[in-house]
Amino acid sequence: MKAGRYYGPGDIRVDDIPNPVPKSGQVKVKVAWNGICGSDLHAYLTNVPVYASKEPHRVTGETVPVTLGHEFSGTIVDVGPEVDATKWAPGMDVVIEPIFGCSKGDCFPCSNGTRNICPHIGFIGISGWGGGLAEYITVDLQYVHILPKGVPLDVGACIEPLAVAYHAVKRSGFTPGQTVLIIGAGPIGLFLLKVLRSIDPSGTIIVSEPAVIRREFALEHGATQVIDPKAEQVPAAVKRTVAPGVHLAFDAAGIQASLDACLGSLRQRGTYVNVAIWEATATLDVNVILGKELNFTSTLGYDRVHPEVIALLAMGKITGIEKLITKRISLNDVVEGGFKCLLNEKEKHVKILVKP
Amino acid sequence: MKAGRYYGPGDIRVDDIPNPVPKSGQVKVKVAWNGICGSDLHAYLTNVPVYASKEPHRVTGETVPVTLGHEFSGTIVDVGPEVDATKWAPGMDVVIEPIFGCSKGDCFPCSNGTRNICPHIGFIGISGWGGGLAEYITVDLQYVHILPKGVPLDVGACIEPLAVAYHAVKRSGFTPGQTVLIIGAGPIGLFLLKVLRSIDPSGTIIVSEPAVIRREFALEHGATQVIDPKAEQVPAAVKRTVAPGVHLAFDAAGIQASLDACLGSLRQRGTYVNVAIWEATATLDVNVILGKELNFTSTLGYDRVHPEVIALLAMGKITGIEKLITKRISLNDVVEGGFKCLLNEKEKHVKILVKP
Repeated sequence: MKAGRYYGPGDIRVDDIPNPVPKSGQVKVKVAWNGICGSDLHAYLTNVPVYASKEPHRVTGETVPVTLGHEFSGTIVDVGPEVDATKWAPGMDVVIEPIFGCSKGDCFPCSNGTRNICPHIGFIGISGWGGGLAEYITVDLQYVHILPKGVPLDVGACIEPLAVAYHAVKRSGFTPGQTVLIIGAGPIGLFLLKVLRSIDPSGTIIVSEPAVIRREFALEHGATQVIDPKAEQVPAAVKRTVAPGVHLAFDAAGIQASLDACLGSLRQRGTYVNVAIWEATATLDVNVILGKELNFTSTLGYDRVHPEVIALLAMGKITGIEKLITKRISLNDVVEGGFKCLLNEKEKHVKILVKP
Repeated sequence: MKAGRYYGPGDIRVDDIPNPVPKSGQVKVKVAWNGICGSDLHAYLTNVPVYASKEPHRVTGETVPVTLGHEFSGTIVDVGPEVDATKWAPGMDVVIEPIFGCSKGDCFPCSNGTRNICPHIGFIGISGWGGGLAEYITVDLQYVHILPKGVPLDVGACIEPLAVAYHAVKRSGFTPGQTVLIIGAGPIGLFLLKVLRSIDPSGTIIVSEPAVIRREFALEHGATQVIDPKAEQVPAAVKRTVAPGVHLAFDAAGIQASLDACLGSLRQRGTYVNVAIWEATATLDVNVILGKELNFTSTLGYDRVHPEVIALLAMGKITGIEKLITKRISLNDVVEGGFKCLLNEKEKHVKILVKP
């Protein structure tokens, strides 16, 4: 079968690899759609820790090349031995929750229900165990969630980044009526907006984003105000609408300017939530945190929130995700039409889906 | 009467000034003891924002010179007009809670019970309205708390820094059984220890402090382990005792090394609480916050927690404060025996009290 494999930065190839056979406790899934993630783009540009390398991954033991793709949905086509046939059967549409920890009994995060912050964190489609950029994958059942009727497969492929946003909102302590700033209207920023709107349909959510098309997406998907940070000072623009500043600021950009804009826009005792992976260290004036008694936190991935996100989609609390899929391509076009397109025309796209 | 007055950095003089007369809603207090605070030392070395300057303070309207001293206790000697004589009478021992905000109705922090983070924050004894380094002071009743029997006046003068520590512990969310690291065993670090011990007499509290005398104080006042950060790596030393790292790290030093030591010593989802005023910006690797989903916060002063601290002292939940008073001097000796002594022999002293 065909598989998009990662050999290292700048080197993704579509190879022919053996079709996998499900082992005990696994199902075999025919992949319908796989989204290209911002982290995949990072790994295409440079070495990123969690991605497979020439050193065996500490959990999967795999080295490059590995099949790429961790945002994917598909349909069960086979089940392995010892799988409960009353629960899992060919024909079922599913989404994969790709995060895994070491799951060892003596690992503090893994034994406390937080495998997303295990120091040995890995992802299906990043660290080994197959990936979504292949015609088929076999997956342990613990990572498989059934998609109900009403959640189509293309939307299903967006559940993974939605789970990132959902986890961030959940950990932020957001409650209806709180005012929010989101910096960056890429996929995570827009998905944060969707999740916040599922909880509070009418509260003040301000989005700062330099790309005009993305600002339009933000307005279309529920922002009450958008700011062009190249044209005006974000804190001043925020405070024209919310005089004391916002309760919550989500940073989906992860740069010095976004951090400074968030801290300047927060009200006393407000909370900064970083949802980005940073490429450089930040300069922090701790006295700003002190003077307003701010909270500064960060969230990483998610852990078993997929059922909650699927429920929000099935109930119609989150809608319009398909409008954020700005391009659909075939696996053969994954490098030119996917990775290079996202790198060169970043501001035109939100989510590109690949059909293997 | 004699008063120790602040004219600016490097310039504190003992002057003769008029004896104040209580106005409506005020009491006149004969000051018993006044502690010298770390912030006072800062202001003796350099300009510090909240301290009076040549520009009128935005709330008091006063300029330098102002009477210094915001950690003080004393005895009521007179009451002004319209003071309830059944509640306030000469002979009562009291402590002053010196923080004030602008208290304007349209001020977000002041109208939300957080005057300590009002942008116009000021302190009696720092920003005007008299101070504890004088024989007498007249104070509005809202800043006066009665000391019950069993809380002597010297301990009363330590309630202000105890309130800083109490507020920090309260906002940290500390609960009995949580493991704690405190960096810095100066007055605030040691008072954090006292407050934590009043809540949990037996939990693990590790203190990191370079000065040997202060490490001895920490052990004497309830630390389960002390670390010399010049001799060993703090995170490694912490993790030998608490393998996954501590739940809470209080930073009472406010330097890059203390921040790094705290972040490295925290377990996943642990909380960093800065209690120090920083002199420089920090370099922060946000990915460290991200990878462990840490919380980073800071606390500033206190707001109306004095009654809770007084109750802990009266109930005997906090004891031994008098042992942390390492020197007692007269007002005439305030510069040489107080400020210069603390600057030159910092590691030998915890709290120096001045008798005006």
